Amino acid sequence: MTYQPPLLVALDLTGTFAFGLNGALTAVRVARLDVVGVVALGMITALGGGVIRDVLIGAIPPATFRDWRYFALAVAGGLIAFALSKALDRLGTPIMVLDAIGLSTFAVIGASKALDFGLGIGPALLLGVVTGVGGGTIRDMLVLRIPTVLRSDLYALPALVAAVITVIAFELGFYGLPAALAAAAVCFVIRVLGVRYRLQAPEPLGSVKRRKASEGE
Amino acid sequence: MTYQPPLLVALDLTGTFAFGLNGALTAVRVARLDVVGVVALGMITALGGGVIRDVLIGAIPPATFRDWRYFALAVAGGLIAFALSKALDRLGTPIMVLDAIGLSTFAVIGASKALDFGLGIGPALLLGVVTGVGGGTIRDMLVLRIPTVLRSDLYALPALVAAVITVIAFELGFYGLPAALAAAAVCFVIRVLGVRYRLQAPEPLGSVKRRKASEGE
Amino acid sequence: MTYQPPLLVALDLTGTFAFGLNGALTAVRVARLDVVGVVALGMITALGGGVIRDVLIGAIPPATFRDWRYFALAVAGGLIAFALSKALDRLGTPIMVLDAIGLSTFAVIGASKALDFGLGIGPALLLGVVTGVGGGTIRDMLVLRIPTVLRSDLYALPALVAAVITVIAFELGFYGLPAALAAAAVCFVIRVLGVRYRLQAPEPLGSVKRRKASEGE
Repeated sequence: MTYQPPLLVALDLTGTFAFGLNGALTAVRVARLDVVGVVALGMITALGGGVIRDVLIGAIPPATFRDWRYFALAVAGGLIAFALSKALDRLGTPIMVLDAIGLSTFAVIGASKALDFGLGIGPALLLGVVTGVGGGTIRDMLVLRIPTVLRSDLYALPALVAAVITVIAFELGFYGLPAALAAAAVCFVIRVLGVRYRLQAPEPLGSVKRRKASEGE
Repeated sequence: MTYQPPLLVALDLTGTFAFGLNGALTAVRVARLDVVGVVALGMITALGGGVIRDVLIGAIPPATFRDWRYFALAVAGGLIAFALSKALDRLGTPIMVLDAIGLSTFAVIGASKALDFGLGIGPALLLGVVTGVGGGTIRDMLVLRIPTVLRSDLYALPALVAAVITVIAFELGFYGLPAALAAAAVCFVIRVLGVRYRLQAPEPLGSVKRRKASEGE
Repeated sequence: MTYQPPLLVALDLTGTFAFGLNGALTAVRVARLDVVGVVALGMITALGGGVIRDVLIGAIPPATFRDWRYFALAVAGGLIAFALSKALDRLGTPIMVLDAIGLSTFAVIGASKALDFGLGIGPALLLGVVTGVGGGTIRDMLVLRIPTVLRSDLYALPALVAAVITVIAFELGFYGLPAALAAAAVCFVIRVLGVRYRLQAPEPLGSVKRRKASEGE
């Protein structure tokens, strides 16, 4: 794959750790799990999106299976969440910020890697979003929650915006660290503002009002 | 892969659009989703079965990622469902018919593509069914419904019949447009009659009677 | 892949049949399904873990699609469960023992196959566990249960132990039938004792007490 600049790799590793931590914390809150289950859900959250992307573009074995740092950070996030779940519950905001860094970096790297592998614009956008939200979605399915990405607070949309900027930069020939950081920054800001002001993407008329039901699940 | 006749491609594209539309409509009815979630579920319904098949036979990247028409029709179905969900609720029968076209074509193409890639009879039958029902199944898992295919109205069975006819025709050396259309037509008729007369495949004795519970989910 | 000794293949086939039977029985108990749904869930339970492993290491098409015996035993397990679900309900212990054989063999073969394909230690451990528990996990997701592996009775942990022993033996250069059988035996004993004495892996403080709720689902 295209060389990724060290700063982007650093953000990607940060995001992997944050996803592992946050994914495992969500798991602890939602379902009664043992240590294996908690760490497994942390790993799935952290590595799942990239693994789906790599399977679909044919980058096998997945990148996160070949670089032990991703694996180690995902496991570390899960173990820390297991050990410190009560204390970490009070750190909602910093964890959300780390999580938004992960979402942003994953979306940019996902879209650019798909383009590197010769996919078209539509699939590259899709894979940008999938890289960002795929892991959390599998985790939510495993603990029987309607996936966050489907129901709340601008989660997929900022990832899509980051993927769009990445694809435009790539097609115009100036994709590189500045463009990647700009795309990630836009995603990050939308995501954080979305959480802060509880923004929502438009909903269809006549959709079922069941958020509380599914959240109480 | 084997050249697919234009008529079959046209049916396949029709089915993709119908699955995108129907998948997104189901999503709107079952869960409270924003526009990204509705379109995502439409796309997953329309493209999911073929993507699973292509991953399992090694046709990477998946066919629907390489032909923009599939992608565009799946997105279009999702967007139309989002915009017109109330109006479309009244069009149950035509949408069911379109959906049955998708199921039939997908099952035939899925089984024949698996055979093209050298798989045996058992896996080809499985992949015919998976191509037909896989997308809707992932969608149902995402919105926490027991998948339609597992509980109702002859859905997997007609797909299996289509796959069986396809495999027989293939093994006897006369697979082509007439055989493909015949296989799809048989599936289509069984599916439509199944919905019309609420036919069910046999159930085991002693199974839990919980359909209403799961549908009310 | 590395030649697997006949005894290991025999255990693997036994496990495939047991997983098909047990997976389908669980499906019958939890959800109202027709014959297609029951057999489908049996097949998914029996073949799912190995298929995920093979997709992730790039062994496409999956091994169980190329050896008809796996396919046939998975289907047979599902059909027997469908036909005899009431009678089999009384055979809880022998079925649990067969299932533990499957878990043990799958974990050992999964880890050793991942190493054969050049993956590192972390991914090999992960794929050992995934091979053992992946099929049942997909089944549980399909019938809307929190996956067994996440919440009960030492299920993933013995698989992980088997994978650890396998990896150690492999790295020290003496992986073979004796090491494989020893690894599987340790897993089998932990699993059976776990069920017998209702052992649990450690849980985080403050996790939600919802086992009964999810089991009554």
